[in-house]
Amino acid sequence: MKNRPIGIFDSGLGGLTVLKAVSALLPNENVIYFGDTAHVPYGSKSKKTVTAYSLEIAKFLTARDIKILVIACNTASAVAADVIRKHFPIPVVDVITPGSRLACETTKTGKIAVIGTEGTIRSGAYTKAVHKIKEGAVVIAKPCPLFVPLVEEGWWDEKITELTARKYLDEVKKSGADTLILGCTHYPVLKPVLNRVMGGSVTLVDSAESTARAVRDILHKKNLLRDRPNAKTAVYASDDPERFARLAANILGKPLKKVYLKKLIS
Amino acid sequence: MKNRPIGIFDSGLGGLTVLKAVSALLPNENVIYFGDTAHVPYGSKSKKTVTAYSLEIAKFLTARDIKILVIACNTASAVAADVIRKHFPIPVVDVITPGSRLACETTKTGKIAVIGTEGTIRSGAYTKAVHKIKEGAVVIAKPCPLFVPLVEEGWWDEKITELTARKYLDEVKKSGADTLILGCTHYPVLKPVLNRVMGGSVTLVDSAESTARAVRDILHKKNLLRDRPNAKTAVYASDDPERFARLAANILGKPLKKVYLKKLIS
Repeated sequence: MKNRPIGIFDSGLGGLTVLKAVSALLPNENVIYFGDTAHVPYGSKSKKTVTAYSLEIAKFLTARDIKILVIACNTASAVAADVIRKHFPIPVVDVITPGSRLACETTKTGKIAVIGTEGTIRSGAYTKAVHKIKEGAVVIAKPCPLFVPLVEEGWWDEKITELTARKYLDEVKKSGADTLILGCTHYPVLKPVLNRVMGGSVTLVDSAESTARAVRDILHKKNLLRDRPNAKTAVYASDDPERFARLAANILGKPLKKVYLKKLIS
Repeated sequence: MKNRPIGIFDSGLGGLTVLKAVSALLPNENVIYFGDTAHVPYGSKSKKTVTAYSLEIAKFLTARDIKILVIACNTASAVAADVIRKHFPIPVVDVITPGSRLACETTKTGKIAVIGTEGTIRSGAYTKAVHKIKEGAVVIAKPCPLFVPLVEEGWWDEKITELTARKYLDEVKKSGADTLILGCTHYPVLKPVLNRVMGGSVTLVDSAESTARAVRDILHKKNLLRDRPNAKTAVYASDDPERFARLAANILGKPLKKVYLKKLIS
């Protein structure tokens, strides 16, 4: 049971920041990662469509006998986590709850900002999650649709990226928030730019690390942590595994030996 | 037979520039438009996946008895036009041939630049099409992956868009090309920015208009032009038809009464 892998999925590359955090924190764990590159991005698609894609992936991963499922995509976490929990009996960790909890612990002013894709922000999932933990908190939510394509283009610290961030974050800065949740798994690579734009007094909350800790806590509690060496990571993509491998190396900071192609039905 | 509609499809909104040009040139024609918003964008996906999506759409449109099929998407034109022609007996117009022909007629230096998505440029389809028409032409091809998300964000004439264009087009400007093919149906709305960046001596070739003329020529030759008033346009999207209708109004310059939801199998 302990040897069974951790399943992680995302619409594409972004969730690799979660894979990286999980592997760093839990180096003995076997992991299966699925990137839905045939349907990427999820952020601008409807709840119904994103839910259908997510269920299909969860089915594929649970068929490979995972012990825990991590939804490493904010849009899928926002719109599909509840349905996935209903359909599958294993523990399901989304990226929204851990990030919201950390933000509530961090804020001093009680004003928390969150940035993400259109789908994530429109869902109101972060606002709901924060209010569940800290009732009186003020949440400022702002969609930033160009950040994902900028990250995928590799323009992580360009003048254009900084100007885009300034345009998106102008109101957020004026709001007096002291904590900014990076509500999209693509965003951690933009930290240098976001720190510059927001100024030193605002703390950035990276949900990748808090999600990894949530996974560890659950596995620990259920006595499911693997304690042997030689852990394996298998990576699947639903389209163009070669391109995925190439771009993944940038995020992981090391090359991926092999990315398997796995098409989905829907 | 003449009353049968013209079928047009694209991965999403971009092809509406072709719909607009067709409706302006041929106001008596019934048109069915399909935007594959469940799978948008095509530009970063593999040939195999884009071909599967395109065949599915062509099947849907031919089942609705169209008299001609227009592939109003450069990526699908580049990778799937030949396969579609093999599978369906009606005339198929892609957006690459008409734009290439117009560029060959326009250039004086014999140097033609083309910009598009990663998929379109990687396919080499424009280079092949230009060389078929004008053997000795020099083709400078440059992928511009951020243009589509910038257009979809509505930032058609912002400073950020201009900076992005300068970054992408720097080598193209130095190449001495006097003609620039807009090899993506999203790009015509960027004409003011692109004209500023390229300077007045470079002619922009918009494939929407040349494609509309190609459609007219084929229908005229086959005696299939409809000559009655009260033409109808029906618009389908594979996801989130409300969002599609909202954004479509910007491109068409007028509201769309109704967008129908039509899911695809693949």
